[in-house]
Amino acid sequence: MYSYKLLKPDGRKLTLYSRNPIADDIIAPSPSKEPVVANPHLRWHPLRGEWVAYASHRQGRTFMPPAEYNPLAPTSDPNFPTELPQGKYDVAVFDNRFPSMYLEAHDPPVSIVDTLPANGACEVVVFTQDPQAFVSSLSLEHIELLFQVWGDRTSILGEHPNIQYVLPFENKGVEMGVTLSHPHGQIYAYPFVPPVPARMLDMQQVYYQENQRGLLQDLIQKEIADDKRIIYQDEYAIAFVPACARYPYEVWLAPIEPVATFMDLTENQRVGLARALKTVTLKYDGLWNRPFPYLMAWFQAPTDGKLHPEAHLHAQFYPPYRTSDRLKYLAGTELAAGMFANDALPEEKAKDLQAVAINLEGQIKNL
Amino acid sequence: MYSYKLLKPDGRKLTLYSRNPIADDIIAPSPSKEPVVANPHLRWHPLRGEWVAYASHRQGRTFMPPAEYNPLAPTSDPNFPTELPQGKYDVAVFDNRFPSMYLEAHDPPVSIVDTLPANGACEVVVFTQDPQAFVSSLSLEHIELLFQVWGDRTSILGEHPNIQYVLPFENKGVEMGVTLSHPHGQIYAYPFVPPVPARMLDMQQVYYQENQRGLLQDLIQKEIADDKRIIYQDEYAIAFVPACARYPYEVWLAPIEPVATFMDLTENQRVGLARALKTVTLKYDGLWNRPFPYLMAWFQAPTDGKLHPEAHLHAQFYPPYRTSDRLKYLAGTELAAGMFANDALPEEKAKDLQAVAINLEGQIKNL
Repeated sequence: MYSYKLLKPDGRKLTLYSRNPIADDIIAPSPSKEPVVANPHLRWHPLRGEWVAYASHRQGRTFMPPAEYNPLAPTSDPNFPTELPQGKYDVAVFDNRFPSMYLEAHDPPVSIVDTLPANGACEVVVFTQDPQAFVSSLSLEHIELLFQVWGDRTSILGEHPNIQYVLPFENKGVEMGVTLSHPHGQIYAYPFVPPVPARMLDMQQVYYQENQRGLLQDLIQKEIADDKRIIYQDEYAIAFVPACARYPYEVWLAPIEPVATFMDLTENQRVGLARALKTVTLKYDGLWNRPFPYLMAWFQAPTDGKLHPEAHLHAQFYPPYRTSDRLKYLAGTELAAGMFANDALPEEKAKDLQAVAINLEGQIKNL
Repeated sequence: MYSYKLLKPDGRKLTLYSRNPIADDIIAPSPSKEPVVANPHLRWHPLRGEWVAYASHRQGRTFMPPAEYNPLAPTSDPNFPTELPQGKYDVAVFDNRFPSMYLEAHDPPVSIVDTLPANGACEVVVFTQDPQAFVSSLSLEHIELLFQVWGDRTSILGEHPNIQYVLPFENKGVEMGVTLSHPHGQIYAYPFVPPVPARMLDMQQVYYQENQRGLLQDLIQKEIADDKRIIYQDEYAIAFVPACARYPYEVWLAPIEPVATFMDLTENQRVGLARALKTVTLKYDGLWNRPFPYLMAWFQAPTDGKLHPEAHLHAQFYPPYRTSDRLKYLAGTELAAGMFANDALPEEKAKDLQAVAINLEGQIKNL
């Protein structure tokens, strides 16, 4: 993997990644030259015992780009610079212009609840220069590169003393609130271990102390033995609808043997995981012959400098649909009580996905 | 408050409530005479340490009602019975036909994760016979009755040895997935204290042990002293955008002095809380001059037979909009990490709601 670090005219960082060497004459553009002025803060929610982030962003000068303007595509018209330059590279990562967390945040407002500067980081990861692509249409080598990019970002962000947890994720589809269809994800780097990974790590730690084995490691062995909900499996990686799925088409994807973070993946695991990810996303997009929306989140060990033998790098997909024309709304019992209620069994939804025929080397395009 | 208990032809319970005596010749209808066959089960989610409910429902005989058929209105055409009878009553509560939990559930399937029968209960609460009404258009006396109904259901459901927690809530609006616009809510009665109230009660218990005062009780005093985010206040009840709001237009509503459950409300508190609820919902519906969608959830003490001096009955409103034309999508950081990120401050959103002029005795109709 090659990488090339640049600075945008507004002070934000941009890193280009490629499987091939990158030319050193590339200049980083930005939709606006005005420096980013971000100062988000955290407030403590005393009843839930968790932090909430607040960021109110100054609106920049009015910017009226042409209708086909795509801020995540390489700049084609210098009058309307995008976030990315022309040039040969595969993946690009840059600082979010409107971050919910910012390493230089300072002087949080005084409130009746505790406050802190939101000293984290928010990055945008552009998966490919092709605006028509999906994760499912990326080549296996390209997906492997993406894993290496996530590993590099986790390493770089995690080295910062403020950063305790790095979460790469992709919101896909208008149903998830995504306005830019160019394939991209985000990375949130938190100054604390957020509640959901914290809870999962707690459960994993208790299990590890009792069993000297990983909770997800053993659950994967049970999924393999049960053999009802598996979507992809090879020697190194697996994807399955978990027996305890909260979303109808929820899928988990993991190396079979635990590693703590993206940096720890072996070559074999990365290859297997790329095949697993391509299989799952091809089946998703093939299920109803249209792009399938989801939240894909990658959970890894905290970057708190401690050892985390309990951690097990894995992805969880949360798709918003329960049938081809019905969304699963999160409402009373999910949002207020925290108990998910499903009207379909994971075994049934797994069968739906198992039945989608795919060609792993093939590409779904122009959906 | 008067109540009248009935049994539907399919075996489900129906209770009518009124401020006036109810005739004893009313017969309970049901859209279908086929007995309800529900057998939901719970599966343990080992990574999150929480239960997930699964219910797959047999589809009944094809039922082709006329276009204007409203299953929550009193039956007008005996050929197409609804859930409710004709007659003089104000509020009606009946067992959900497709429950996610069921007290008679039994023999859960064997899985690779722990399973249990989902021995809880799901009830539908029809707020009024008027299909055009909103909570905001109900009279103050009608809202007080609704509080008494929620108290009666909490008492009745909570007496069952299986039921540990009773959650009344209302999902309002198509944005929340609601398909029936007739004003109604639901009650979920859980065989355990679900994760969200459990977390809040934990935080409240720690605070109570340290301070001999309620966490929410003291937070309310701080909101009163800060006087920036209050939407309604009288001697007994208050409504405010909390300083730690996770949703842009989040509002909490509570008696100023803590009570554990709806059964414990004094007359004065009930009157104050009714004025607070009508004020908040009038302001919501008046904000953009259209029905304002939300999830309204009422948190109370568990019904586990223990004393809960830390508990404080209150409502939390989670509205899905962040501006008049933009939804706040729950995505990566909210769903995967559990950290909410807001681009507006609670103080600003509180000002929006404070600025909505209302007539507390008035009615918003035909929006």
